[in-house]
Amino acid sequence: MFNIASLNSQYNSEINDIIQHKTKPPGALGLLENCAAQLASIYSQKQQKLVTKISIIKPSMLVFAGDHGIAQHPISIAPSAVTRQMVLNFMAGGAAVNCFCRTNEIAFKVIDAGIIEPLSIDETRHCDAFIEQRLGAGTADFSTQAAMTESQVEQGLKLGSQIAQQTIDEGCNLLMLGEMGIGNTSAAAAILVALTGQSVDECVGQGTGIDRQQLALKKSLIQTGIDRLHCSSTPLSTQQIIAEFAGFEIVQMVGAICAAAQAGIPVLVDGFIVTSAVLLACKLHPQVRDYLIFAHQSNEKAHLLMLSILSAEPLLHLGLRLGEGTGAALALPLLKSAASFYNDMASFDSAGVTV
Amino acid sequence: MFNIASLNSQYNSEINDIIQHKTKPPGALGLLENCAAQLASIYSQKQQKLVTKISIIKPSMLVFAGDHGIAQHPISIAPSAVTRQMVLNFMAGGAAVNCFCRTNEIAFKVIDAGIIEPLSIDETRHCDAFIEQRLGAGTADFSTQAAMTESQVEQGLKLGSQIAQQTIDEGCNLLMLGEMGIGNTSAAAAILVALTGQSVDECVGQGTGIDRQQLALKKSLIQTGIDRLHCSSTPLSTQQIIAEFAGFEIVQMVGAICAAAQAGIPVLVDGFIVTSAVLLACKLHPQVRDYLIFAHQSNEKAHLLMLSILSAEPLLHLGLRLGEGTGAALALPLLKSAASFYNDMASFDSAGVTV
Repeated sequence: MFNIASLNSQYNSEINDIIQHKTKPPGALGLLENCAAQLASIYSQKQQKLVTKISIIKPSMLVFAGDHGIAQHPISIAPSAVTRQMVLNFMAGGAAVNCFCRTNEIAFKVIDAGIIEPLSIDETRHCDAFIEQRLGAGTADFSTQAAMTESQVEQGLKLGSQIAQQTIDEGCNLLMLGEMGIGNTSAAAAILVALTGQSVDECVGQGTGIDRQQLALKKSLIQTGIDRLHCSSTPLSTQQIIAEFAGFEIVQMVGAICAAAQAGIPVLVDGFIVTSAVLLACKLHPQVRDYLIFAHQSNEKAHLLMLSILSAEPLLHLGLRLGEGTGAALALPLLKSAASFYNDMASFDSAGVTV
Repeated sequence: MFNIASLNSQYNSEINDIIQHKTKPPGALGLLENCAAQLASIYSQKQQKLVTKISIIKPSMLVFAGDHGIAQHPISIAPSAVTRQMVLNFMAGGAAVNCFCRTNEIAFKVIDAGIIEPLSIDETRHCDAFIEQRLGAGTADFSTQAAMTESQVEQGLKLGSQIAQQTIDEGCNLLMLGEMGIGNTSAAAAILVALTGQSVDECVGQGTGIDRQQLALKKSLIQTGIDRLHCSSTPLSTQQIIAEFAGFEIVQMVGAICAAAQAGIPVLVDGFIVTSAVLLACKLHPQVRDYLIFAHQSNEKAHLLMLSILSAEPLLHLGLRLGEGTGAALALPLLKSAASFYNDMASFDSAGVTV
């Protein structure tokens, strides 16, 4: 479905030369040096020439919202109705991710990928930042049946891809994704179990803050969902894993991530849920990995496992466990700073420094 | 010398109420919640009323430069001449800290606190960002004698305090400090040994990247400096520790930190060298600690020890080992984001969210 080029190493030695000649000891800017090199490499490939000035243009946040059948069980701190309420909060600009996007000059859109009750015309009339591309009224309960059909998977990948491509066509050259969906840490954990064969205990955490009893139920339901499929003699395909466990917001993010990589632009990856979509995208198209920069390590325990599978070194460790894309929005200024040192810092020669 | 008020807890419960009613699970914004609470508490005390909008105004970076007698020995990757060259680089806007200050809208000044060779009138003519307040032409070699006199300590505290106060008088309400001085990780390490009694092995690291032989010599010289004072039967006062081991940039930073705390404004603390000044300031006036926010954990190994002595949880872990104030400049956007969620994020009530 996607045609994604691996990032070639054609410009790497020139890019490293630029970084090594800056007026600082080698490596002294730590992870920012990796960021600058990766951004320069991605944009050089896109422009088919060595980029000596990294320009991050119209960085954009797409927040996908969807509801989850699994949330019928008491495994979240809030009922599914809160997904819809938070969509309205995003539209009104009142959520954490809105604040961070405003502060860091990030364009913002919220996408109804399939919450239970759609917004009314009155509710959406005055909001340019809202996009409706629903795959249904929430997924089915994956503890007893597939969360969605294979045709919903296809449709979701396509819709996610389209909104990402539209954002890129509007001039964005760096994409961030966020999500809202009561129950979606359960979906992300189930995806992790299904993709890796790791135990439910290793993959399931407290989400936004459930108690011990809720956690036990959450684990048991995820195990039941996984066990449902154990009669199958062939391993599940990535599309099947999506159909069985993902959410409508997750499948659309998979499409958006693949579209960004196909367009040759970087994706700044948020926390646990977005990283589950990243794992799926990388399974579909391993070349996607080249375009990913990891914003933060979430407080959700299995995020560390996801990051290690992806050999990712995240920029921030702030103990966040909110989702919405907040970690990505918070990390963007670090990419701008990485660009600024790559673009504007003096070289030893130009500054007359004699190290 | 300084009159510093402890931060009182008068507004804390109201501040916590504001944060707890935001549309997010309790604690879900991790360290940013602590930042917002501390900023709100500091500014509330300053304005003598509950602050419901945190305004960070004219955040300013003061980079202090000084040379070190200890650098006559081959214990750095660069000769002392590079301190002066880097001061010129700062003035031209070409250093990493300049790039990060421009990107993050931070006002910038560089202070000659005592580099070996002063700048000429021609070199400083067109630079408003340069301030000359020299305590001498570099310190003495602390392995054989005190780095500076007690009167230089007094003068340094005063000059550092004055430039901080002037910056505050110009409207700045959040101060960042940076430094440049070949050899100054040796000074900072010696200060740490003298303040804590920890071993030289625990306190000395590779600075900006010296080899094993240089590291052995660095440790040996610091040990010699420490041993010089062991005949004394009474423990050294903080002023004496400054006189014995600090640099002219470090003593001026101690004064600047105390002045900021006296003025009731927060200091966003950079890496290893700045934190050595922070330790000294807190030893002189323990109330200073209330006004400190820690930007990052440096790659210099003993920075972790300093941070643990101060019970500090730094915001960033990027593997930086450059100094100059770069870590503080990189962390400022996180404080702006902390302010933005405190100021503008909806409450459950206002957003109609029913958690």
